[in-house]
Amino acid sequence: MPPKLQRTIYTGTFLSTPSLDQLQILEFHAVGVDEDGIIRHINTHIHASQYPNTGIIGKTTLLDWLSTYTFPLESSLSSLPKARLVYTACITRTLSHGTTTASYFATRHVDATNLLADICLEKGQRAFVGRVCMDNEMNPDYYRDESPEQAISDTVATIAHIDSVDPTHELITPIITPRFAPSCSSSLLSSLGALASLTNLPIQTHISENTSEIALVSALFPDHDHYADVYEKNGLLTPRTVLAHAIHLSPSERALVKERESRISHCPVSNTSLSSGLCPVRELLDQGITVGLGTDASGGYSASILIAAREAGMVSRMVAHLTPEHPDDDAKGGVNEKGLPVTEEAVTDKEAAKYSTSHKDRKKLSVEECLYLATRGGAKCLGLGEKVGAFEVGMEWDVQLIELGNAADGGGDEGVEGGDKGLVELWGKETWGEKVAKWLFCGDDRNTRKVFVRGRLVHERR
Amino acid sequence: MPPKLQRTIYTGTFLSTPSLDQLQILEFHAVGVDEDGIIRHINTHIHASQYPNTGIIGKTTLLDWLSTYTFPLESSLSSLPKARLVYTACITRTLSHGTTTASYFATRHVDATNLLADICLEKGQRAFVGRVCMDNEMNPDYYRDESPEQAISDTVATIAHIDSVDPTHELITPIITPRFAPSCSSSLLSSLGALASLTNLPIQTHISENTSEIALVSALFPDHDHYADVYEKNGLLTPRTVLAHAIHLSPSERALVKERESRISHCPVSNTSLSSGLCPVRELLDQGITVGLGTDASGGYSASILIAAREAGMVSRMVAHLTPEHPDDDAKGGVNEKGLPVTEEAVTDKEAAKYSTSHKDRKKLSVEECLYLATRGGAKCLGLGEKVGAFEVGMEWDVQLIELGNAADGGGDEGVEGGDKGLVELWGKETWGEKVAKWLFCGDDRNTRKVFVRGRLVHERR
Repeated sequence: MPPKLQRTIYTGTFLSTPSLDQLQILEFHAVGVDEDGIIRHINTHIHASQYPNTGIIGKTTLLDWLSTYTFPLESSLSSLPKARLVYTACITRTLSHGTTTASYFATRHVDATNLLADICLEKGQRAFVGRVCMDNEMNPDYYRDESPEQAISDTVATIAHIDSVDPTHELITPIITPRFAPSCSSSLLSSLGALASLTNLPIQTHISENTSEIALVSALFPDHDHYADVYEKNGLLTPRTVLAHAIHLSPSERALVKERESRISHCPVSNTSLSSGLCPVRELLDQGITVGLGTDASGGYSASILIAAREAGMVSRMVAHLTPEHPDDDAKGGVNEKGLPVTEEAVTDKEAAKYSTSHKDRKKLSVEECLYLATRGGAKCLGLGEKVGAFEVGMEWDVQLIELGNAADGGGDEGVEGGDKGLVELWGKETWGEKVAKWLFCGDDRNTRKVFVRGRLVHERR
Repeated sequence: MPPKLQRTIYTGTFLSTPSLDQLQILEFHAVGVDEDGIIRHINTHIHASQYPNTGIIGKTTLLDWLSTYTFPLESSLSSLPKARLVYTACITRTLSHGTTTASYFATRHVDATNLLADICLEKGQRAFVGRVCMDNEMNPDYYRDESPEQAISDTVATIAHIDSVDPTHELITPIITPRFAPSCSSSLLSSLGALASLTNLPIQTHISENTSEIALVSALFPDHDHYADVYEKNGLLTPRTVLAHAIHLSPSERALVKERESRISHCPVSNTSLSSGLCPVRELLDQGITVGLGTDASGGYSASILIAAREAGMVSRMVAHLTPEHPDDDAKGGVNEKGLPVTEEAVTDKEAAKYSTSHKDRKKLSVEECLYLATRGGAKCLGLGEKVGAFEVGMEWDVQLIELGNAADGGGDEGVEGGDKGLVELWGKETWGEKVAKWLFCGDDRNTRKVFVRGRLVHERR
């Protein structure tokens, strides 16, 4: 069980993103933290088991990436010593990037998945830990569940283990994890839906990442209206469901996701790395869908959620570039024949006039929006919206201490007092907003000096 | 003048990219370097004067970015003490990123531009230094050349200064630098063309970065066929010309650039940051145009050429995603109405069959291609193809020593012997190609342990 802590008062400048378009800056502020232990980075989609492959993608896209790189590595984590090395490195590294909460896909191995939960608890990272379910013949012989029954009983075994080490899920929560529809039989999907209903546990899976994957789902599940309907009919589209990617959702799929209050984990680095597409995040947000960010390492080349936030901004700028100047030029429908993001219904001039920026510019995510998605947006995705992601009374102290370098430090030259301050250089005249922009675009783990989860210091860079 | 050096033999594993699709690995190799002093990163387009704004872009695109952020900062470098701080920081930082050669845009100030050349010489970075010419009313009153004559005489003054400090241009070469067509009168452009012809010096400028910029050029130069024709008719399209961006070139413009043997600096980070577009690099390469990489800081959010190489790979994956499956579906013409890159002429099935990968996949740049563009491609852009960018007898010793971390180092945890090894973690089974991929996608300045230019150690990380 997580340890109890001393009462502490922290002073300094506190930054948070209370709403999507707001950067809250509390200068010369003090925050008291009691024995139980408030903000920062939440990674709503990361495959801990793929961590050693980070940066290795070749020219693959989703389906051949799985068979070439991913299944062989995941399969090898049947070895507990190897799993221990991989999971320890992944958790240590994500903490060093300021990730206070991560929603992890592990592998199909019960013991290794339980070990991931144990190491998160020991190192103090808030985590959702999912044993990956995958029972059909689309998976390789050497790495798949034997039957729906075995997949369910193994999933129950990991839930029981997490319940035993963290009974109230203060830090670690089991999460029901069908890999994605093409990996699962209908029987397994419906059993997992029933298990989620019975246990009230959260669910994570992938949806609509790649056009070949969508075609495969359509071939495998011919009786379903669309990809989202496969999850819907099997009880897997709930207010506790996190859907990773969701790039190519049709208008009716988006409407269904909104209606079911399911959440979307936007994974921009992975979506670009695997040529999956450009997710129309503004459209999702305009529709009122809850969106957080995931690194999707190792589909994404980095386990840093700060890079995911940066690339969310970059991808949104490419979406803006590809968006016609006039709303009426948008094709109707979610994705046109080129895979470009388009609005569900052409936004009228009157609606567009509500915004001070042009139709194209509205597609861009601002610095504060990128950071919101990486913090409070992620918290909301994972049902932690009342618990972490803001500096508010009653919230838990999940924060990171950020230190930025000064130009006077002599960028890149060593022997400077205080060690390597990283790549952000302040020149003395930056506004707070500009400082935060520099951190978003130029920062890295060297700027993350301390990381706290529930008041406990879980990472420190000296 | 650059100092003379001791004869030295370097041993180890040497990596280079002798051609676009080739990664050369020389294990257990020795290379002798004589008194004059072979590979690494070349930044073919960077605005040293904009360095303090790195990471600050807001939601701007090219033209409002210039007026909002760029002109005020450049103008302030009339102060020599400020210029010294900015240029020292920029050179120190780019050296720490492994940039052995940079082609710099300075400002319109003679003294500050001369100072940039002096600091490059002192710190030992090979550089092309350009005094920025901009004389028309599109530039702000507070920051423009008074007349074409003044712009020319100031340019001649910086050339004379560089000739005096490095007479044979061993390290520093002046480069004739019209900001871009919309900033210059026809008179200034033609005078700069004449000066380039007279001096045989290289030329750098911007072309076809942004669709509004292209429309502006068309309005300002109504008698010219297209943007490239403005440079052509003024004697500025030469085999020594580096054109930055070149995203939206028409087929006839590309043909002209190819015919004139002018070179293109691809700036993927900037192109995404400012929503400028997706440069069709494969098409440029297929056409036989010489392409290198630029960071275009601060239009790009990073002065790291490694990040430019990484993002060249990422942008090419987005181009692949947006490319139709079948070559015949490509529209004719360089850029279609959505600004998507398309082939000049639809590649026939027979031509496409020459390649083992699909039509879409061919658009992706491989790891070795990204690194080629950042090294030898850049060297060729700058007329240094015979001098640097490969481990060959007779080439100069411009190299960086790369060290990668091991998973056993305990990623992100400090107190590990040998200091902070950065984000790349090797697990022991990676091939050389995978090691290089991890460096490209996960590496940063922490992996650049030593940097040499012409045999001189110009940066060391301890």
